[in-house]
Amino acid sequence: MAISMYAASVPVFRQMLNSLNDVLNKADAHASAKKIDPNALLQARLFPDMLPLARQVQIASDFAKGACARLAGMEIPSYEDKEQSFDELRARIAKTLALIEGITPAQINGSEEREVVIQQGTPRERKFAGQTYLLHYALPQFLFHVTTAYAILRHNGVEIGKRDFMGSY
Amino acid sequence: MAISMYAASVPVFRQMLNSLNDVLNKADAHASAKKIDPNALLQARLFPDMLPLARQVQIASDFAKGACARLAGMEIPSYEDKEQSFDELRARIAKTLALIEGITPAQINGSEEREVVIQQGTPRERKFAGQTYLLHYALPQFLFHVTTAYAILRHNGVEIGKRDFMGSY
Repeated sequence: MAISMYAASVPVFRQMLNSLNDVLNKADAHASAKKIDPNALLQARLFPDMLPLARQVQIASDFAKGACARLAGMEIPSYEDKEQSFDELRARIAKTLALIEGITPAQINGSEEREVVIQQGTPRERKFAGQTYLLHYALPQFLFHVTTAYAILRHNGVEIGKRDFMGSY
Repeated sequence: MAISMYAASVPVFRQMLNSLNDVLNKADAHASAKKIDPNALLQARLFPDMLPLARQVQIASDFAKGACARLAGMEIPSYEDKEQSFDELRARIAKTLALIEGITPAQINGSEEREVVIQQGTPRERKFAGQTYLLHYALPQFLFHVTTAYAILRHNGVEIGKRDFMGSY
């Protein structure tokens, strides 16, 4: 028994990336139906010094791929952050899903004590054991950005609900 | 090795309840400094049909206590949802923390397959194995409300940052 590192990572990121994709679909359809410039949503922020929707999606992707790759001991693929449309953001999510779904349980399991270093070589460098990194850092950060993307869209009148946020579980 | 059910629950809820408490402290101090009616923050929403800050905090508390109690096989204590001030919300968080910190690892460990039933007796009743309930339902729901509380305050100009959201880990 006990939870494997794989079970606490890939399937959770997959659930929420899929729900984020569905939320973006609804936002895209809403913009089309109401003849809203998609950029009015893609560049929307909750406050001037917060990041806009498109960046929230990119960062959610970064935490998902960063967490799964680090725990698997793989190099983290770098994505360019140049997505500027709903289509491109969905492609980013699809690419992230393909990456994490390509990681096997055997690669991630046993990483409870694997050293994970974030912001290496910077003054904010921090070392974690894999389990602490996943539960206390990567998952809260990831869910922060998925929730903030949802909040930006709700604040802008897109008709989505908690069920869309939660996805299939 | 592998993650215990306790490690994936109580310490994660504790981290984020403590950070939520600190975020509320900053909001309270901001309201005092700027001579803002605290209700302007406590009753703020991101959209008319979303719940206000005070409810977001109450629901975050509900998911933390509900998850830990269910996994421990305890009856879930019912709280009244009558908090109307920052002091009362902090007391709610303190009460929630005391409850979950009173649950021992032995009570929660081994609950991976324990049946958890939510919304029992309603059309939305749903049964989970403990591990699925924790990872795919309770933690995302909990983090949704903690993040939304933060987002409401950020949107209203309270000077908080990601570090406040993350707390100590």
